[in-house]
Amino acid sequence: MEHTFDAAVIGAGPAGLSAAINLSQRGKSVIIYGSENLLARAEKVDNYLGLPGLNGTQLMDTFLNHVKKMQIPIKNAKVANIMPFDDTFMANVNGEILSYRTIVYAGGVAKAKELPGEAQFLGNGVSYCATCDGMLYRGKTCVVWGNAKDAVEEANFLAGIGVNVNFVAAKQPAALTDTATFVAGALKAIEGENKVSHAVLADGTRLPCDGVFLLRAAIAPDKLIAGLELTDGYVNVTRSMSTNIPGFFACGDCTGTPLQVSKAVGEGLIAGLAAAEYLDQD
Amino acid sequence: MEHTFDAAVIGAGPAGLSAAINLSQRGKSVIIYGSENLLARAEKVDNYLGLPGLNGTQLMDTFLNHVKKMQIPIKNAKVANIMPFDDTFMANVNGEILSYRTIVYAGGVAKAKELPGEAQFLGNGVSYCATCDGMLYRGKTCVVWGNAKDAVEEANFLAGIGVNVNFVAAKQPAALTDTATFVAGALKAIEGENKVSHAVLADGTRLPCDGVFLLRAAIAPDKLIAGLELTDGYVNVTRSMSTNIPGFFACGDCTGTPLQVSKAVGEGLIAGLAAAEYLDQD
Repeated sequence: MEHTFDAAVIGAGPAGLSAAINLSQRGKSVIIYGSENLLARAEKVDNYLGLPGLNGTQLMDTFLNHVKKMQIPIKNAKVANIMPFDDTFMANVNGEILSYRTIVYAGGVAKAKELPGEAQFLGNGVSYCATCDGMLYRGKTCVVWGNAKDAVEEANFLAGIGVNVNFVAAKQPAALTDTATFVAGALKAIEGENKVSHAVLADGTRLPCDGVFLLRAAIAPDKLIAGLELTDGYVNVTRSMSTNIPGFFACGDCTGTPLQVSKAVGEGLIAGLAAAEYLDQD
Repeated sequence: MEHTFDAAVIGAGPAGLSAAINLSQRGKSVIIYGSENLLARAEKVDNYLGLPGLNGTQLMDTFLNHVKKMQIPIKNAKVANIMPFDDTFMANVNGEILSYRTIVYAGGVAKAKELPGEAQFLGNGVSYCATCDGMLYRGKTCVVWGNAKDAVEEANFLAGIGVNVNFVAAKQPAALTDTATFVAGALKAIEGENKVSHAVLADGTRLPCDGVFLLRAAIAPDKLIAGLELTDGYVNVTRSMSTNIPGFFACGDCTGTPLQVSKAVGEGLIAGLAAAEYLDQD
């Protein structure tokens, strides 16, 4: 088990980047984990003070340049299952268990609706991250479904390590590997007794399987860390961006409206400084 | 009485400017009142995401250019005495009574300690704004004291309209008009019965006067509008930057720590959007 960074920031949008530069400025070692950020798709952002007239991609590039200038590492990785353990947090990062003294969560808004059976079988056949949990399903049959940009890539990864993959989607993606089976349709529910036994499609088809990978752009935060308190899907935070879990801070869209860049950057600063202060208390 | 703008933003620092651009983007007419901003004195600000490596003056200029681009008026004016009145707010702006449907307060932190007698005689001989209240003291004697950048200018204004001015300071400023009297010292207390009768200096000197002008960089927010709830000198706000006075929003340093640009800009956005929503409710 490594312990190389004081803090992990989950999410590489405006909130996560702002938290990271403030942690770094206070002399803390920090790594950012993130993949796709939705801001890059914005047509124009005119209300972030000082940088008017940019589109989402230009604004994100400007933000990322600031982070690069401060030499803060960003890793295109997924984090699943965070567990508080003896004054640290253990996190499953792309299948590797790493530990951090504090976590700043800036994972954005999970827009997808929860499927029937999803919460019930989480950890018993339901997973959100192929690279994190794939090895558990080697030689077994899994259903893969999701709208994440890298869903096909993750399905191919599973097929490559010897998982029997059924990839469910409306249309067959060109990039899907030949060793995976394409199933036309949409996932509606997950069934089983103590663990997953079937994935149910919208047309009623019941696919037998050992596991279901739900590959969405964002994981609901209370699925990431058990016991995190939410209200209407948003993380409960204090004015200092603390959550109900000591050492676990949240900022940006995941804490509620307005879902805007300035608010995310401001909350990121507060969360970053609060996490730095938390580290200093030890 | 004019009613030309939907909203007035008090304070031309990062929070006020951010509130104003967001009000403007929502189609509301808005004016910014502000004078000196302390950010301009910062040596270097490296933690406002996207704009690293600037000094305070450069960052403020970048912010002001954004506001100019959106053609939002900024007036170098002082606001004293705001009063809620029949769904609007009446404000004394440089001596003129103007009305607004909503106010966003972004006045920064009032660092000065309150003097003995200051709160007691506010409105009965104590004033924070020469241009606002000067005419009341024409032909009378006033003590002028304060560390605001434009304190001498305001003292000269008072002398110019026929107030008998005693300007108290450690050293005589070169710019002080000949018609004002310079008094070496520091103000310690304000005395009187029902209204001000004397200003007391640190060396015990008691100067007879009808009024005392305290010209500081910032006015304590509860001295600006009666009944505003504070905690430890900071304005109490909700997550949507509402105060206890409906239609009166607050953002930036005045709401508490961390006293940082990103937090101010984020809160300004939230306050601006909340004020726009408030205007839409009518």
